[in-house]
Amino acid sequence: MNASHRVGPLFTDLYELTMAAGYFAQGIEETATFSLFIRDTPQRNYFVAAGLSDALEGLSLLRFSKSDIDYLKTTGLFKTVFLDHLAEFRFAGSVHAMPEGSIFFPDEPIVEVTAPVIEAQIVETFLLNTIGFQTLIATKAARCIHAAKGRALIDFSLRRTQAADAGMKVARSTYVAGFSATSNVLAGKWHGIPVSGTMAHSFVGAFDREADAFAAYAKAFPDSSVFLIDTYDTLEGAENAVKVALEMKQNGHHLVGIRLDSGDMVDLSRKVRRILDDAGLTDVKIFASSGFDEYQIAEVLAQGANIDAFGVGTKMGVSADAPYLDIVYKMVRCGERQIRKLSPGKRTLPGAKQVYRKFDSRSRFKEDVVASRLEKVKGARPLLKEVMADGKPLGAFDSLETIRDRFKQYFSQLPDPYKSISEKARYPVHFSSDLMAL
Amino acid sequence: MNASHRVGPLFTDLYELTMAAGYFAQGIEETATFSLFIRDTPQRNYFVAAGLSDALEGLSLLRFSKSDIDYLKTTGLFKTVFLDHLAEFRFAGSVHAMPEGSIFFPDEPIVEVTAPVIEAQIVETFLLNTIGFQTLIATKAARCIHAAKGRALIDFSLRRTQAADAGMKVARSTYVAGFSATSNVLAGKWHGIPVSGTMAHSFVGAFDREADAFAAYAKAFPDSSVFLIDTYDTLEGAENAVKVALEMKQNGHHLVGIRLDSGDMVDLSRKVRRILDDAGLTDVKIFASSGFDEYQIAEVLAQGANIDAFGVGTKMGVSADAPYLDIVYKMVRCGERQIRKLSPGKRTLPGAKQVYRKFDSRSRFKEDVVASRLEKVKGARPLLKEVMADGKPLGAFDSLETIRDRFKQYFSQLPDPYKSISEKARYPVHFSSDLMAL
Repeated sequence: MNASHRVGPLFTDLYELTMAAGYFAQGIEETATFSLFIRDTPQRNYFVAAGLSDALEGLSLLRFSKSDIDYLKTTGLFKTVFLDHLAEFRFAGSVHAMPEGSIFFPDEPIVEVTAPVIEAQIVETFLLNTIGFQTLIATKAARCIHAAKGRALIDFSLRRTQAADAGMKVARSTYVAGFSATSNVLAGKWHGIPVSGTMAHSFVGAFDREADAFAAYAKAFPDSSVFLIDTYDTLEGAENAVKVALEMKQNGHHLVGIRLDSGDMVDLSRKVRRILDDAGLTDVKIFASSGFDEYQIAEVLAQGANIDAFGVGTKMGVSADAPYLDIVYKMVRCGERQIRKLSPGKRTLPGAKQVYRKFDSRSRFKEDVVASRLEKVKGARPLLKEVMADGKPLGAFDSLETIRDRFKQYFSQLPDPYKSISEKARYPVHFSSDLMAL
Repeated sequence: MNASHRVGPLFTDLYELTMAAGYFAQGIEETATFSLFIRDTPQRNYFVAAGLSDALEGLSLLRFSKSDIDYLKTTGLFKTVFLDHLAEFRFAGSVHAMPEGSIFFPDEPIVEVTAPVIEAQIVETFLLNTIGFQTLIATKAARCIHAAKGRALIDFSLRRTQAADAGMKVARSTYVAGFSATSNVLAGKWHGIPVSGTMAHSFVGAFDREADAFAAYAKAFPDSSVFLIDTYDTLEGAENAVKVALEMKQNGHHLVGIRLDSGDMVDLSRKVRRILDDAGLTDVKIFASSGFDEYQIAEVLAQGANIDAFGVGTKMGVSADAPYLDIVYKMVRCGERQIRKLSPGKRTLPGAKQVYRKFDSRSRFKEDVVASRLEKVKGARPLLKEVMADGKPLGAFDSLETIRDRFKQYFSQLPDPYKSISEKARYPVHFSSDLMAL
C-alpha cells in the first residue's frame, strides 16, 4: 500500500472538476484520448519509466466518498446533479503504457488514456504526479548507477526527500534502476527492498571514546557492522576500527566495512584502504557518503578513490540538478476530432499512438518511431501495451524484481553516448509519415 | 489527517534502529538533547518555520505495530529482547520549538528534543523530513509573496510536486506564507484552504470554437469563471472572452477573469487589459501562469506587466532553485556530557539552547542571540517554547489562520534587505558568551 493511493479523487486540481462539470452541463460524453509524455529536459538524454503500478492501482480504486462529495458541496461551485454523477463515478477507461523499467525519450507517449472525456480529464493531476516523480528519480538513479561503474549504491535520501511519499517512492525507484539497498526501513517492509544502515556521529559522540562506540556496536551487530570513522579524525578512526575489527575476528566474527562521511574522499579512501590492508583486513569494505550524486561519484572515481559502495542521499533524492520534468498530459483525440498543437517547443501530435523501437545487429537501440496506434512499422518492436481495460488492470502488476531486471536488460542495450551524465546526446526519435500527415 | 502521520516508526533510516539497539545492548538510558537547525543556504536570507503540527502529531502517535515488529524480525538484525522493547515503545520526551510561521536564520535551533537517547534518536529521520520540506516551501512561498508586491498568488503545483504528500504540504505551506488559494482540492478539504481553478487547453480544444468553450463554461459557472485565452491566439482569445463576458453581463452575471498561460506576459497582459477595458470590463482580472516563481514574478512586474494574480506552479512546488535545505539534527547533550563539533562549516555548539530576538525602536528585527537554554538575555524575546512534555502536546495546535497571521506579522518586522530575492544579506546571529565558554 502506498500513501498516494489513499488520497483519492480530490487529489486533483480544481479545474479538472470544473471542466468535468462544464462537459457534464453540455452533455458531452465523447470518448477522448489523452497522451502523457515528457518534453526535452536539458540535463537528461533518456528517461526510465516508473510509477505505472501506483497509477493503475489508483485509477482502479478511484471513488468519491460521501465526505468528498460533502466537501465539494461546501465550495458552492457545483450543481447537485453533477455531484450525484460524481458519487457514482468510476474510472472505466483503457490505458496503454510502457512497462515500468522501460527506457524512453522526449516526446514519446508513455501512457495513453482513452475514456469518456470527463473520466479521462479527472485523472490528469494524479497521473502526472504519480508517474512524473517516480520517472524523475528512476532516471536520476540510473545516471548514478552508470557513474558508479558496478559499485554498490544505497539510497540514503529519506531525511531530506520532499516529504514522506517522496521518500517511499525514491526507495522504490532507485531499486528499479539498480540500487542495492535503501536506508528506508518502511520501504523494506512495503516493497521487500534490502535495507542497510550503519551509525551516525551522534552514536560515536554518546561514548567517551570512539573505540568504545565501535565495540558497543559490534556487540549488537557482530557480523553486520559498518563503523563510521570520521567523527573526530578519519585516520585515527580507521586505526580504532582496525583494533575493534581484529577483536571481532578473534571472536569468530567480522567487520563488514567502514564509512567515510566527510573530507577528501579520494585521499582518505586510499589511506584508509592501506591501513585496513596492512592489518590484514582486505575484506573490510569502504563505504562513502556525503553529498554524492552521479557527478560526485564520477569525479572521485576518476581521481582514483578506493571506494566499494556509495550512500547516495539528498541530491539524488530530490534530483537536485533537475528537480522536475516537463511532463504533460494532452488531449489528442475527442470524439472524431484529432487534436494537435503546433506551438513552437510545445508540439502535440494528434491521435492515439504507438512507439516503435528499432535495434541494430547487436541488439542495441537504433531509433524510435512514434506512429499512429494502428500503424505497423516493419522491423520494429511496439513499446506501449494495453495494461487496463474497462478500468481494470489486465493481469497482475509486474514484481519489483521483474521491473528491475527489465531496466537492467534495456540499459545494457542503450548505446554509451546516451548514457553520458555530462554530454547531451539526442537519441533519434522520428514521427511516422502517417502521423505527420494528420 | 496527513499522509506522513500514518507512515509510523518504520519511516526511518535503518541506522536509527541499529543505533537504538546498540544503546539498548549497552544499557544506555541517558537523557539526551538533540538540536534541529538549518545550515546556511546560499540562495536564502531567512527561513519560515513550518511542519511542527505534523511533527508533534507524529511523535505523539508513534507506535510499532505487530506487523512492524514482524518485519523487523525478518531482517535478522535485531535480538528479541530489543524488539520486545520496541513493541512497548512510546515517545515520552519533551520538545521545545519555534511556533510555525516564525522567521529564523541559519544555525538557529528551531526544534530541540530531550528524551532518553533511544527515543530521541529514533525520531530523527521523521523530524528532518517533516519539518525540512515544509520549511523549504514556506520559505520559497514567502519569497514569491514578497516579489508579487500584494498581488494574489495561487498554488498551481500539484501535478509536478515530488509525489503526493509533497503536494499536500505545498498547499499548506504556501498558505502559511500568504498565498490566497490552491488548485489542490484535497488541501481544501483537509485544511480549509480556499480552492481555485479555471480550465485547461484541453477544454477549449474539446469544442469546435473557442467562444463555444467559454460559453459552455460560463453556463456551468456563471459567476466564477476564468477563461483561458491562449489556446489558439491570445488576442483573439481576449476578443472571444469579451464577447461571452458581455453576454454574461446582459444575463446579470459576470466574468471573474481571464488567464494567460504562454507568450510574452508583459506585452500580452497590457494588450489584453486594453481590450477588456475598451469593452467596459474593467473589473475582469488578469491571471497569469506558466513557469512563475519569485524571479519571474519580479521580472515581469519590473517590466510593467498588468497582472492581477499569478498561478505559481512547478518551480515553487519543488523549490527549484534550492530543492533541499541543509537541515540537521545533532546531539548536543548526552547525560552530563555537553557535545560539540568544531569542524569548519559544520559547527555544532553544546547543550540545550534558546534563541533570543532583539527589536529596534520600530519593532523591526535587530539581531538574534543563541544562548544556553537557561541563560537570560536582557531586552530580548525568547523564540523557542516548550510544546511537548512527556510525549504529549501542550495545548491545541495553532490553527492555520493563526500561523498565517503570525507569519504576516513577523514578515512585516523583517527589514527589507533580508527580503531580497537576489541579494545575499546575512542577518546578525550571535552566540552568547556563556555558550561559547562551554
